[in-house]
Amino acid sequence: MAEKLKGAAVFGQSGGPTSVINASAYGVIRTALDTPEITNVYGMAHGIVGILNDTLYDMGKEDAGELKLLLNTPSSALGSCRYKLKTEEDLKRIHEVLEKHNIRYFFYNGGNDSMDTCTKVSDYLEKVGYECRVVGVPKTIDNDLYGTDHCPGFGSAAKYIATSVAEVHKDAYVYDTGTITIVEIMGRNAGWLTGASALAKLSDAAPDLIYLPELPFDLDRFMSDVEEVYKKKNKCLVTISEGAQYADGTFVSHAKMSATDGFGHAQLGGTASTLAAIVNKKLGVKVRGIELSLLQRCAAHLASQTDIDEAFLAGKSAVEFAVSGGTGKMVAFSRETKDGKYHCGITYQPLSICANTEKKIPREWINENGTYVTQEFIDYALPLIQGENERKLENSLPRFAKLKKIVV
Amino acid sequence: MAEKLKGAAVFGQSGGPTSVINASAYGVIRTALDTPEITNVYGMAHGIVGILNDTLYDMGKEDAGELKLLLNTPSSALGSCRYKLKTEEDLKRIHEVLEKHNIRYFFYNGGNDSMDTCTKVSDYLEKVGYECRVVGVPKTIDNDLYGTDHCPGFGSAAKYIATSVAEVHKDAYVYDTGTITIVEIMGRNAGWLTGASALAKLSDAAPDLIYLPELPFDLDRFMSDVEEVYKKKNKCLVTISEGAQYADGTFVSHAKMSATDGFGHAQLGGTASTLAAIVNKKLGVKVRGIELSLLQRCAAHLASQTDIDEAFLAGKSAVEFAVSGGTGKMVAFSRETKDGKYHCGITYQPLSICANTEKKIPREWINENGTYVTQEFIDYALPLIQGENERKLENSLPRFAKLKKIVV
Repeated sequence: MAEKLKGAAVFGQSGGPTSVINASAYGVIRTALDTPEITNVYGMAHGIVGILNDTLYDMGKEDAGELKLLLNTPSSALGSCRYKLKTEEDLKRIHEVLEKHNIRYFFYNGGNDSMDTCTKVSDYLEKVGYECRVVGVPKTIDNDLYGTDHCPGFGSAAKYIATSVAEVHKDAYVYDTGTITIVEIMGRNAGWLTGASALAKLSDAAPDLIYLPELPFDLDRFMSDVEEVYKKKNKCLVTISEGAQYADGTFVSHAKMSATDGFGHAQLGGTASTLAAIVNKKLGVKVRGIELSLLQRCAAHLASQTDIDEAFLAGKSAVEFAVSGGTGKMVAFSRETKDGKYHCGITYQPLSICANTEKKIPREWINENGTYVTQEFIDYALPLIQGENERKLENSLPRFAKLKKIVV
Repeated sequence: MAEKLKGAAVFGQSGGPTSVINASAYGVIRTALDTPEITNVYGMAHGIVGILNDTLYDMGKEDAGELKLLLNTPSSALGSCRYKLKTEEDLKRIHEVLEKHNIRYFFYNGGNDSMDTCTKVSDYLEKVGYECRVVGVPKTIDNDLYGTDHCPGFGSAAKYIATSVAEVHKDAYVYDTGTITIVEIMGRNAGWLTGASALAKLSDAAPDLIYLPELPFDLDRFMSDVEEVYKKKNKCLVTISEGAQYADGTFVSHAKMSATDGFGHAQLGGTASTLAAIVNKKLGVKVRGIELSLLQRCAAHLASQTDIDEAFLAGKSAVEFAVSGGTGKMVAFSRETKDGKYHCGITYQPLSICANTEKKIPREWINENGTYVTQEFIDYALPLIQGENERKLENSLPRFAKLKKIVV
């Protein structure tokens, strides 16, 4: 049994938001508020930037009912950032602010880059001998975090993508005239989200071809694949990852490569429209490029209840783990079977192995031609999209959480 | 009391699909199948093209349960077309096919162009003395049909747009860094759909600025509007119609004006990305352009139950009207108040006045600056998005109607 550690807790959200990141926030905040060892619960305004600026919200002053609405409120309610810790100066400042508020529990919710932030904070605090338990809570629609079976946020995005692609399929196949539709889906280096479009086949409305960033993109092969389907069906519905790239590493959407986000990744987009122009020119057919854009990461109205429950569980587990002495780890999911059914178990992975390592779709879950995912992929993804959420509505429109955000 | 007319009925779907066009199909088909005077119920394969090709489906051979699933199946289940009747030859052929199958009831579901088709068919059949009752069923997400308070399809698209814009707002406002987001919404000449984004203010997540095609677009005014909001909030969320055009009639998205659809309308799109590039260059800020694209017209998962009920009612009323002797009319909605609440009444408008006339947002429902809709618009649109649909799911994915489509 670990020594009891009394002090305040702080929680922050970082990186691209998801439909359920606030469910993890609620998991952390609610559990922390209910934990006697935790004296105060603070929220970082815009992630780690909120600590650097000493702008912390007092979560204890929020209305309990509004906090609960976080379960169905998309995006990061406390604000997000893409700030990468650069200098020892940053870490010193973090230490200073933590000490000022007697913060002994540090919870950070994000993807690879956020786990990198956690690692640095954890290592530094250990080095300077400031006792603070640091636990990462996973989050990313991309599902590319290493060390966990899947990530909170992926199931809801996958459900949105499968549902939307099924609906778009109905539209794309409606005319008597020939049309080709190309749908671009998020994912820089991992194709989990694009692969999820294959779930639409359970609605009898699946894409004809799926292109993932795991395999090099070959324009000639792509053109002949599309042409073959089009000749047979007078239609073709393609889904493709924004991160699709040629064998030499050039992105298919190289037009948009100039802008960069704070972490030095290329800012993608435009894969569908680039290919639509090429296909239109070659085949002389009406081609429509569709980009699911931000919608796929914020469509809380279609969030999977399984994903919401698991996101909450991840947050709750982080607090319980830290209070019982755990630190330097990220909460992770393990896939288990209970009574013959999918069950999500909790494990804890070293932060360092989760940071900056990307998990991709195994080659054997992609067909030989590289134009579809296999049944193994479907079996993997399907349990994660189950369950309809019970979001609160007013006037048939979403009623999101309204936080007071009272600065400490 | 009109003379009883015994014979077959035919139903067709035309133009761009909607989330609820199949609810009208079910209204027509179910009611026709249950009407003793109607001997057979046929569906046109791809609208009027199905008559020209004599490719008709026998709707009586469909499973009743599958037919009912049409209530929640997006897009046109019988297939659509954009074929414009050109010659007397076409009309002769239509007459020939109708006579061959003893079709005495002709129901056609679509927008302005489809009502034009109805008018031509009705006039021709009257001229040649072939007794057939022709009734139009309105449909268009654009809500621009003249002679009706609103159109089936609009309410569901409006609900999708309001919900999605509210969710995107949460995402667009999440970072500590400055960002501008421009969302492009369908609507060539009428801004009803773009105006519907204002409903997001009921979720406390409304766009900052709304630009409608009813007023000429002024780039300098737009830039200063955006800059003003951005200076105050470090963010700006804009919604704009795809049909936004300068005072000289040039579309803001003129890049895409070359392609045309079958009716000679410019094929729009790219308004958001065009403006995003301009704003980014001028202000040096990260700007994201989002196009809701086909999603807004096929997202049956967010269809308004009010819209579904009314779409069904429109189809049902068309059959009842024709059987009781009506012809040459389009079913229309009138806004009534029952027990102090919104109620949708049915009227019948001459086909000729509905064809090729576009209904726009009244000037007094747009604010003086031309940057938002007024409360009158909100009051008009809000009742139309009410009610959550009860769609059938399998594996948490939509279970669409599966029709056999047995050709007669």
